[in-house]
Amino acid sequence: MSIKETWTEYIHELQNRICSSLEQVDGKATFAEDAWERPEGGGGKTRVIAKGNVFEKGGVNTSVVFGDVTDAMRSQLKINGAKWFASGLSLVVHPINPFVPTVHCNYRLFELYDEKDILTDRWFGGGADLTPYYLFEEDAKHFHQVHKSVCDSFDGTFYTALKKECDDYFVNTHRGNERRGIGGIFYDHQRPGHDHAENFWINFGKACGTAFIDAYIPIVEKRKNTRYTMENKRWQEIRRGRYVEFNLVHDRGTLFGLKTNGRIESIMMSLPPTVRFEYNYQPLAGSEEDKLLQVCLNPTDWLNE
Amino acid sequence: MSIKETWTEYIHELQNRICSSLEQVDGKATFAEDAWERPEGGGGKTRVIAKGNVFEKGGVNTSVVFGDVTDAMRSQLKINGAKWFASGLSLVVHPINPFVPTVHCNYRLFELYDEKDILTDRWFGGGADLTPYYLFEEDAKHFHQVHKSVCDSFDGTFYTALKKECDDYFVNTHRGNERRGIGGIFYDHQRPGHDHAENFWINFGKACGTAFIDAYIPIVEKRKNTRYTMENKRWQEIRRGRYVEFNLVHDRGTLFGLKTNGRIESIMMSLPPTVRFEYNYQPLAGSEEDKLLQVCLNPTDWLNE
Repeated sequence: MSIKETWTEYIHELQNRICSSLEQVDGKATFAEDAWERPEGGGGKTRVIAKGNVFEKGGVNTSVVFGDVTDAMRSQLKINGAKWFASGLSLVVHPINPFVPTVHCNYRLFELYDEKDILTDRWFGGGADLTPYYLFEEDAKHFHQVHKSVCDSFDGTFYTALKKECDDYFVNTHRGNERRGIGGIFYDHQRPGHDHAENFWINFGKACGTAFIDAYIPIVEKRKNTRYTMENKRWQEIRRGRYVEFNLVHDRGTLFGLKTNGRIESIMMSLPPTVRFEYNYQPLAGSEEDKLLQVCLNPTDWLNE
Repeated sequence: MSIKETWTEYIHELQNRICSSLEQVDGKATFAEDAWERPEGGGGKTRVIAKGNVFEKGGVNTSVVFGDVTDAMRSQLKINGAKWFASGLSLVVHPINPFVPTVHCNYRLFELYDEKDILTDRWFGGGADLTPYYLFEEDAKHFHQVHKSVCDSFDGTFYTALKKECDDYFVNTHRGNERRGIGGIFYDHQRPGHDHAENFWINFGKACGTAFIDAYIPIVEKRKNTRYTMENKRWQEIRRGRYVEFNLVHDRGTLFGLKTNGRIESIMMSLPPTVRFEYNYQPLAGSEEDKLLQVCLNPTDWLNE
């Protein structure tokens, strides 16, 4: 099998496994699938969950899409070449309970071809980031530790670098240096080089993708029955507003979808179910809400690297 | 007084009058003012209202700001020159009751100066648009008729042209041709020319700004006590999601604010208080919700021009 076939088979298998594990921890809701085709080439499987015991809204999507490189892609996405191919999995889940964090991950392969259909470039990208509404240091450490372990098994320098990439990417720059959450790992444009064989980055992408389940599900199990108040819910909905701001103003994945005529409902799947925008809301200094805000403003070295 | 002084005095006076009339129709909440300064030059008065009898959230803002033209402004906003000045009023109000429409208007003056502080360009821009959640044709006609009357008193060709500008501007292009509401008028880059004297466009801006009260308040009076259900509220919150999408993905005012280091809470004031994003929600064909959606998809000639 070619690299792209191997990768595409993997993301579909991962989609199945992640959906099963999320359904299991939810205990009520199941995923519904919308398969879609893109007029310009390819399509996807959008799987959504809603109104569960645990998950208020979520999607675990795969897409395998391709087409000609358009002028909009050249100017706005800085993509050069004649034809492109992309294959990836992208998920966001928004739990009901404000003590269960929202999570996102996305792992993808991108290829460019010339006019004669000869492959001219290939890279992998991906990452996972956690967006809690209340801070539990042990959860932050767990999420980061699972990703560090995967990174370490490939290269001892990766975790520190990719953790920083993540902290630098998920920033609402229009609000100074406020991040949407407490990060994880993020990488893009990973190509084989003299240090790494052809299979290195596909194997890394697979290992990271597979780690999602171990990184997230135990946190859900631990927090899903925590009692919460209306005030906790209100704070969650205010922070969800920041999630919307990031995804619509800054997120490259959203921008890529909008510029490549992606399926709009699959792109907007990432938006939270209920959101609150309050004018100039500021949590009380020293409150639990403020504690979360402070770690969004000041990225923390959770594992004391 | 210079044009910019005359205009700036006008927008502050208009801000007072609009706030009074909104407070009066609300009957409970009053506006709170945050005056702010912009480090690079100028500042504004942000006036917000919340948790009223009628208005769930709203802002009536003025800002008088200036500074050097930055590289970001040159490349992303296509503004050339050495220095810029902008003075305008911008308002958005989000009523509680889904039968009362959301409204937006913005009227502004923009000037450019060269290195020696010599004025090199000046233009006016503005507009008002109505975003109902349920369609009452008489309300749509009223809002458009008030603006047409103002337009007609300046030039018989204006209304048709500016109504079309508005229909073409407030579009969520990522959702095909779906508009955020039922429009109104919109214009930009209006400069004195051989047809129009120096004072023509400032007078037009003033007349349009003043018309806001007559265009909107009678609609609020008529609809504010309409009984509504949870389903009506849910639909309102779903449509508010489209308002968020437009303002964060497409709106030039938001983009201008973000690129010129505007006061973030004043920019984000326009976002609705509570919002709902549901996956692939489609109203039933023929329902009242669908009727509204259809006029957002197909701009209507309300006044049979």
